[in-house]
Amino acid sequence: MAEKKEAKETKETKATKGEAKAQEELGGNYVFIGKKGAMAYVLAVVTQFGAGAKEVIVKARGKSISHAVDVAEIVKNKSPEVSIKSISTSTEEVVTMDGRPLKVSAIEIVLKK
Amino acid sequence: MAEKKEAKETKETKATKGEAKAQEELGGNYVFIGKKGAMAYVLAVVTQFGAGAKEVIVKARGKSISHAVDVAEIVKNKSPEVSIKSISTSTEEVVTMDGRPLKVSAIEIVLKK
Repeated sequence: MAEKKEAKETKETKATKGEAKAQEELGGNYVFIGKKGAMAYVLAVVTQFGAGAKEVIVKARGKSISHAVDVAEIVKNKSPEVSIKSISTSTEEVVTMDGRPLKVSAIEIVLKK
Repeated sequence: MAEKKEAKETKETKATKGEAKAQEELGGNYVFIGKKGAMAYVLAVVTQFGAGAKEVIVKARGKSISHAVDVAEIVKNKSPEVSIKSISTSTEEVVTMDGRPLKVSAIEIVLKK
């Protein structure tokens, strides 16, 4: 079980690095939604806007998708100058330890100031 | 505080009704995502497209949001003629049994054929 998680993590780390690099080129900022409380990510988004970012991209996979929407809605409702520029969904594939491919949905919410 | 929230609710109810009406005029169809398995809702969406609908709107609140994205992605990946037209999020307010107002995020995914 522990090994299974590790394998998944490695692949995810690679994907994350690739995306982060692509995003750096675009000058944007990603906030990846995980298992912390929503306010931790709200703070991360607000901090990035405070540091001068024009756009912050909130990204999540699987069950965290609903938290990504929560974070985007909280930031939008608290800061009138922030709005949702676009939302896109996609399907990503991870491979479990027993070799089964597993499809997970992902969401990207672009917030702009 | 309570009055303020109530006022908001009324406003949202109106907005929701307005949307439903507008959608009826467009001949669209809503699929509300609840606690069933994703495939039940995929079937509902596919059935509506099969019955001649040009657009089907997948709607969910709270934790069901991630399932709504799953449903939209599954339909899109299985049917090449279906695509995601737009995605929008909102905050809705419900009142819990003990009278506390509770904000929940909601998502609407418009699928078109």
